[in-house]
Amino acid sequence: MAPRLLNRRDLEFMLYDWLDVESLAARPRFADHSRETFTAALDTAEQIATDLFAPHNKLSDRQEPQFDGERVSVIPEVKRALDAFSAAGLMAASQDYALGGMQLPLTVEKALTAYFTAANMATASYAFLTIGNANTLLKCASSAQVEHYVRPMLEGRWFGTMCLSEPQAGSSLSDISTRAEPDAGAPGQYRLSGNKMWISAGEHELAENIVHLVLAKIPGADGKLVPGVKGISLFIVPKFLDGGERNDIALAGLNHKMGNRGTTNCLLNFGEGRHRPGGRAGAIGYLVGREGQGLLNMFHMMNEARIGVGLAAAVLGYTGYLHALDYARERPQGRHPAAKDPSSPQLPIIAHTDVRRMLLAQKAYVEGALGLCLYSAHLVDDEHSGDTPEQRQRAGRLLEFLTPITKSWPSQWCLEANSLAIQVHGGYGYTREYNVEQFYRDNRLNQIHEGTHGIHGLDLLGRKATIHDGALLKTMGEEVRATVNTARGVRQLAAHADALDAAWRRIEQVTQALYGAPDLNQTLANATVYLEAVGHVVVAWIWLQQAMAAVAGLPEDDDFRRGKLQACRYFYQWELPKVQPQLDLLAALDTTTLDMQDAWF
Amino acid sequence: MAPRLLNRRDLEFMLYDWLDVESLAARPRFADHSRETFTAALDTAEQIATDLFAPHNKLSDRQEPQFDGERVSVIPEVKRALDAFSAAGLMAASQDYALGGMQLPLTVEKALTAYFTAANMATASYAFLTIGNANTLLKCASSAQVEHYVRPMLEGRWFGTMCLSEPQAGSSLSDISTRAEPDAGAPGQYRLSGNKMWISAGEHELAENIVHLVLAKIPGADGKLVPGVKGISLFIVPKFLDGGERNDIALAGLNHKMGNRGTTNCLLNFGEGRHRPGGRAGAIGYLVGREGQGLLNMFHMMNEARIGVGLAAAVLGYTGYLHALDYARERPQGRHPAAKDPSSPQLPIIAHTDVRRMLLAQKAYVEGALGLCLYSAHLVDDEHSGDTPEQRQRAGRLLEFLTPITKSWPSQWCLEANSLAIQVHGGYGYTREYNVEQFYRDNRLNQIHEGTHGIHGLDLLGRKATIHDGALLKTMGEEVRATVNTARGVRQLAAHADALDAAWRRIEQVTQALYGAPDLNQTLANATVYLEAVGHVVVAWIWLQQAMAAVAGLPEDDDFRRGKLQACRYFYQWELPKVQPQLDLLAALDTTTLDMQDAWF
Repeated sequence: MAPRLLNRRDLEFMLYDWLDVESLAARPRFADHSRETFTAALDTAEQIATDLFAPHNKLSDRQEPQFDGERVSVIPEVKRALDAFSAAGLMAASQDYALGGMQLPLTVEKALTAYFTAANMATASYAFLTIGNANTLLKCASSAQVEHYVRPMLEGRWFGTMCLSEPQAGSSLSDISTRAEPDAGAPGQYRLSGNKMWISAGEHELAENIVHLVLAKIPGADGKLVPGVKGISLFIVPKFLDGGERNDIALAGLNHKMGNRGTTNCLLNFGEGRHRPGGRAGAIGYLVGREGQGLLNMFHMMNEARIGVGLAAAVLGYTGYLHALDYARERPQGRHPAAKDPSSPQLPIIAHTDVRRMLLAQKAYVEGALGLCLYSAHLVDDEHSGDTPEQRQRAGRLLEFLTPITKSWPSQWCLEANSLAIQVHGGYGYTREYNVEQFYRDNRLNQIHEGTHGIHGLDLLGRKATIHDGALLKTMGEEVRATVNTARGVRQLAAHADALDAAWRRIEQVTQALYGAPDLNQTLANATVYLEAVGHVVVAWIWLQQAMAAVAGLPEDDDFRRGKLQACRYFYQWELPKVQPQLDLLAALDTTTLDMQDAWF
Repeated sequence: MAPRLLNRRDLEFMLYDWLDVESLAARPRFADHSRETFTAALDTAEQIATDLFAPHNKLSDRQEPQFDGERVSVIPEVKRALDAFSAAGLMAASQDYALGGMQLPLTVEKALTAYFTAANMATASYAFLTIGNANTLLKCASSAQVEHYVRPMLEGRWFGTMCLSEPQAGSSLSDISTRAEPDAGAPGQYRLSGNKMWISAGEHELAENIVHLVLAKIPGADGKLVPGVKGISLFIVPKFLDGGERNDIALAGLNHKMGNRGTTNCLLNFGEGRHRPGGRAGAIGYLVGREGQGLLNMFHMMNEARIGVGLAAAVLGYTGYLHALDYARERPQGRHPAAKDPSSPQLPIIAHTDVRRMLLAQKAYVEGALGLCLYSAHLVDDEHSGDTPEQRQRAGRLLEFLTPITKSWPSQWCLEANSLAIQVHGGYGYTREYNVEQFYRDNRLNQIHEGTHGIHGLDLLGRKATIHDGALLKTMGEEVRATVNTARGVRQLAAHADALDAAWRRIEQVTQALYGAPDLNQTLANATVYLEAVGHVVVAWIWLQQAMAAVAGLPEDDDFRRGKLQACRYFYQWELPKVQPQLDLLAALDTTTLDMQDAWF
């Protein structure tokens, strides 16, 4: 029996018992929906993921995409899986009916996503990049552009990419140098030239066309590019132009990754003259939204993409945990420390406390992480379709605060879960004959893309903790306190509530202390530690919510409920205390790393 | 320029300024040696490692050994490198002159080893397994066996393996079922049958012969195997018998690993009848030492192998750190948080505090780990050739205590260093076009083999902390206090000394508290946490020693000295405080993992 991708009962517990997505059906946008339609969508996702995505996960790792200088070849199983995904309408699961969508809440859409990524992160990425691209255009493109580019993407006939980084501009997007020159005689049309790096799904033959969303700079009257982010605009640059002519986009090479190998990752050269649309060099592109608003428009996508990264990390951790659990139940090895008789039968390794430690840690990480991601998705629903302007604004603020954590925490701790899944398997887990080593390699990507771990630390402490006069942190604190106050009334959870309350108070004090530093470089010196500490407290809060839902909704003798409470206990006994030394370090405005000099290394 | 394998200045600082290996030359065994001969040996090792081991590290990962059902093929660069290693006399670097050795101290031999493993862990493993095999036989084999089997190994003509695990017996060696039946008419000769799993270097054509050291059980008069470890004996089972006949050992298959791919890892079937030496099935083997002493004899090797694993982990981390450092100095990206002018040039990323954090953490992990391994090797020298019986006994006790830590701490934290090296490289680090992702994959093995991480926790808390009425822990405490007392007299280090003293006191209290638990299962439930906490304190102690040596021996304005002190400061400010919540958890006799039930997962 193949290990489960996810624990369906847990997913439904989160959606129905905890986040109460059924109540979303009361909103006009979701009026046709109900628990039945949500569950039917989950059934569809689980089946397609199991039947068409999971079976080639290993194969597409072993036979990664090849570039022969002309064409990129991808194993045929990838296209078959993605075609089935599109045919089921899943490219447009959360879109308006008018666009052919199902108008599912984003929370439910993310739960569907979870199945595909758990089954095959690399193949699923082609779809999710396309959805992200479409959502970006829906926010800022003209209606003609939506008709022309978004519709075929939502039908799954065309795929999409995001072209941000360049070889000299990765984390520092303000330094991009791709140029977009107005195309004489064609209003709104530009000719782009420049090199884009790390373009996932940048080239393949899985779809009829590829819609590249490209950040580039339009030169000023003096022919120079405007330094900084203000000069950045957003363009649609399709692989094939209307009429089928090939645009001037050339694949310079594929990057060969440690994991996530099934997704092509490309260096693309725009406008180098490899193709000559309209008889001359230069990639033809179309401005999206207003000039100079490119980064702002792209950030719509990036925030969504960041929840997607966190979710991918969470579910890779989740499926690894289920693999390890199955293995630990089946593999006999050793006896209890106090057992003296060597002729007694060996125990399944789950009988060893240290193996249960590794499983319980995985459970705490992956269910905490998945909960965080679904909670964030629910905030997107509230921001978009909440009943009142206040609810929508509040959800937006929480989402802004949580986004760097939702991206980073699962990327860090569900990688650790994957490492523990290997460890539970012993030597077997280190071999490619088993699945867990691939999850570990695949998951290592998630701390790097869509903003590195360190960048999100700067985002959280340098931006989210201070904008709107600290309103985001304040709103977040109100939510934490509301949970604390309710949990204090629940016998089994009162001590956890006190611990969470104390930890959050400490975060507020520490944030203030950091902004009391003599300069911004010192305030931000240890921003990554801040990200990690706040992240741990946030996940403790997520766990307390899950535990409350378990206590409120499930019978006392239910093993599932007991597991939730035990994982919550694990998080409070084993994990939350780890933030104390981190917060001590931050409160002391430690300058060890700031003082370190290049020459001393 | 290829990145350095190790920092030679640091290695010499550890050997000469800190561990004072020059003083070993005062011992009769090392009388011919001096700093000059040690340094000449380091030069040789560095050169061969750089010229012949490092260049094919990537290639042997990409083109891993292949088994066509008959023969195993390995890229030719591996044999060329190992032949050069043998030709330089390095197989016998620490052996007696009478055996063709150089009589180098083990501390120096391990420093040589460090170069080869940093250059190419997979290729180096063939040599180090052979050396370990030879050392085992030198401890317990007959002089005829030494002449016959050890000499060709020390000359590098024959290679060796250790065959312990079986498919049903990995961590639980007492459950092995390989049988050794006396071979009628040939005294001391046995016929072995059984399956051995995870046999590194178990098959190849790199040497003229392979000497397998095999654990097996001799049946009793009733034909049954004795349960438990008491029934285990040790056998030499050569691939080719005298006269060149092929022994009955068949390669059933290779394991395909995530990393360390260049070392063949084999499932070997003994006595299945594939070959018929002397006309019949059964692998011919020769008893080594006494019947029933197999595991005891093998443990000579395993303790040495465990230092070797720790050292491999340390130097994989070390070379990864140097790669990241070079990259951070060359890669321009971004500006300081307070810098407003986007047209100013981008800074090398080492100018960013968070990048320095990642580099400083790596430095603290890898130099701490390498120091721990060399310190342990020095204890082996003291145990073997110390001036007095007291010194030898004391060194033996410290070594026994430290061995599980020397194996485990580098395996955990230098893997983390490799992860940080990837992170410093950003997306580039995740690609196989760069080197660091391979270090990360290779290093993940080290938490698994030669006893998993959890097994060493049980060894440390369940055995080392209690045997000889707690004498090991007591001796260790005396060493720590001696360091504390000296360091208290050094202005810059007095605060660190106090912190170390407090941490060690806490460990003593916690150890007592753990043995106050109502039963052994509860005492040992969180043994892995104990291993990790004690390990962190031990490495803090190693760092304090290194800092004292730097202060005592180097001029104040020396950048190298400043780096040592800053890394020590990092360890005390950032790392040592992490043990507090671990020790709190242990002191509370936490039963979260013990209480967790299979059904609740």
